[in-house]
Amino acid sequence: MALVVTKFGGTSVATPEKIRAVAERLVARKKAGDEVVAIVSAMGHVTDELTEMAYAITDTPRMRELDMLLSTGEQVTIALLAMAIHELGERAISFTGPQVGIVTDDAHAKAKIVEIEATAIREALAADNIVIVAGFQGSTRDGEITTLGRGGSDTTAAAIATGIDADVCEIYTDVDGVYTADPRVVPRAQKIDRISHEEMLEMAASGAGVLSMRSVEFARNHDAIIHCRSSFTSEPGTIVTHEETTMENAIVSSVVHDMSDAKVTLRGLEDKPGVAATIFDMLARENVNVDMVIQNISEEGLTDLSFTAPHDDLQRVKTAIDAIAQKVGARTWVLDDNIAKISLIGAGMRTHPGVTAKMFRTLADEDINIDLISTSPIRLSVVVATDDTERAVRALHTAFGLDHE
Amino acid sequence: MALVVTKFGGTSVATPEKIRAVAERLVARKKAGDEVVAIVSAMGHVTDELTEMAYAITDTPRMRELDMLLSTGEQVTIALLAMAIHELGERAISFTGPQVGIVTDDAHAKAKIVEIEATAIREALAADNIVIVAGFQGSTRDGEITTLGRGGSDTTAAAIATGIDADVCEIYTDVDGVYTADPRVVPRAQKIDRISHEEMLEMAASGAGVLSMRSVEFARNHDAIIHCRSSFTSEPGTIVTHEETTMENAIVSSVVHDMSDAKVTLRGLEDKPGVAATIFDMLARENVNVDMVIQNISEEGLTDLSFTAPHDDLQRVKTAIDAIAQKVGARTWVLDDNIAKISLIGAGMRTHPGVTAKMFRTLADEDINIDLISTSPIRLSVVVATDDTERAVRALHTAFGLDHE
Repeated sequence: MALVVTKFGGTSVATPEKIRAVAERLVARKKAGDEVVAIVSAMGHVTDELTEMAYAITDTPRMRELDMLLSTGEQVTIALLAMAIHELGERAISFTGPQVGIVTDDAHAKAKIVEIEATAIREALAADNIVIVAGFQGSTRDGEITTLGRGGSDTTAAAIATGIDADVCEIYTDVDGVYTADPRVVPRAQKIDRISHEEMLEMAASGAGVLSMRSVEFARNHDAIIHCRSSFTSEPGTIVTHEETTMENAIVSSVVHDMSDAKVTLRGLEDKPGVAATIFDMLARENVNVDMVIQNISEEGLTDLSFTAPHDDLQRVKTAIDAIAQKVGARTWVLDDNIAKISLIGAGMRTHPGVTAKMFRTLADEDINIDLISTSPIRLSVVVATDDTERAVRALHTAFGLDHE
Repeated sequence: MALVVTKFGGTSVATPEKIRAVAERLVARKKAGDEVVAIVSAMGHVTDELTEMAYAITDTPRMRELDMLLSTGEQVTIALLAMAIHELGERAISFTGPQVGIVTDDAHAKAKIVEIEATAIREALAADNIVIVAGFQGSTRDGEITTLGRGGSDTTAAAIATGIDADVCEIYTDVDGVYTADPRVVPRAQKIDRISHEEMLEMAASGAGVLSMRSVEFARNHDAIIHCRSSFTSEPGTIVTHEETTMENAIVSSVVHDMSDAKVTLRGLEDKPGVAATIFDMLARENVNVDMVIQNISEEGLTDLSFTAPHDDLQRVKTAIDAIAQKVGARTWVLDDNIAKISLIGAGMRTHPGVTAKMFRTLADEDINIDLISTSPIRLSVVVATDDTERAVRALHTAFGLDHE
């Protein structure tokens, strides 16, 4: 008997038929003797539809009210899933995030979980229920409804798995695991059987959509195992654990690309201490997630500063950028929407120098221009033009020996 | 300056445009110096659509999970309405029923409000907000989400109006007030300017859809004024107060018809004490709202017993009825879906005998057969066949002098 947390994303619960299929899977699991907690997302495109409704009303919805709105999506799913399980003759009970004690900070639309009060889940499990929890949402200590941002349901799953000390946290998705690159772009991409938390974290941070960064972070911090697998088969997927499991010979374990960022450049800044601090303070106050930052070499005491941020945050960037430009004395600012980030990830990079050189050579051979560069001990990211993305990813996948036979 | 509770139903908030129109109305009210609390329903047919989704999953959804599902409808509206008010530059904050301290019993799908903790509303008003509250919902002391049943948003409005001691509770609807009969059936029906709580209560109990019975009950018990008016005009509607305001000459103030009930007859029961008690105990346990009851004269120690109950409760009636029939030794049971209830209401009936005779004569002249009969001091109801409904309502409206010139 195992204590299992399983998470089903929006595509797995997109229709009543699919919800029934998930119910059958959960009931089978329960009948096999496991204790089961299921975390679910909003059905299909419901979150997008709700967001569209908000923007039909206003271009600048308050995040508190957006959370109030979006949190209804998961609440619909949990109720329907509980009904589907009852219909199969098993006990089940649904809980919203606030009900189940997912306590967050008050950063609406991207709240962070500060505590899991697991009592309600434990009691419901003890009463022989399959426990169903709304992903993506929680509440502050004052009872304000919050959401956890993109990939929030994964985060809920990982947080609950650690909160109730589950044996495994299974994340069901529409793909059958984590791949060495996006198979839609690289037909010869391979499924990865086991991967370390660290590498998975870098992949998620680099834009691999399979698992959310914060879910992997949670799992790493609490040494929890995540099993990322397909909702459509019973084949094992990818196990994410604390072990360093990269294959001996693979220096790079995956190539990840991400087209969700845009680049903003502030031109003609004074090159003096405190300017960057001011800029990123003001962006942080607007809740903008800055990713890469680069500052050019100074000419005549003036410099350019570029940063990337998600398209989702662009409205808030635009709100803040004029005030920022004025405050730091920038001559002008430019937005480039036409960029992609490409990252190589691999624990082996720590001990193998030369990855950078090989990456640049590979891209140069393809005549692809590199814009920004950023690195971590196990990751190397560059920004290229959107049009070059697929060619760059395929070339790197081949160059680093990741192609399937 | 007045403290105003205003309620907008589903048709008034059916689209983003209509939500914007409600926002404008509320902002105008606020700018005129009033303190404003708005109660809103789910948009358009959302509640019906959610219900359909539930029944696509199971024929017998648990009421707890149905409440979990349906309560999302109002939550969407409050968030969008708050955004629309922000867009107009006013302060606004939305609350779900549970957040705002609407404490109910645990009768899911038809919960009763047991307490209003008005602190959150008072604080939000003091902070200069237009306060928006989700109608139709609340939560038990254990934090379980409940809904208040049909007309629940009216009930929320009346309960909050009494809870914060509002000067008036305005119920905005798609009609411009309470009429002497349904104007879709009786073209010569007239708008009623003022009506007593008692009469309004009987009208609501008899199926007049304008105001929910429980909202009027709340208002009567706390001597609160309800103003029932149109969302589309600024004309005054109907004022419901404690005064006996029936026009001097009108014995009957309205004719109400209701096609939402079905009739169940248990045949061949033993005619002995306790049988009826057993039947209605068992129905109550299934949460069936029984309306009219009639028992035939006994023949050879056997009798028939008929009762009416809402179509909405029929599934639960069917669940219970075989066990009931067996328990009380009924020979068989029959369901008649093809009935309508027609009621005359008027405070003047207390002092004017002969209304019953006149009603029966009017229906007899129209060759309409009467099935069940029930009365209160200010109401007289009969059950007729569905096909006879419109003819019966028109004939009675004319006979009792209610026709508009």
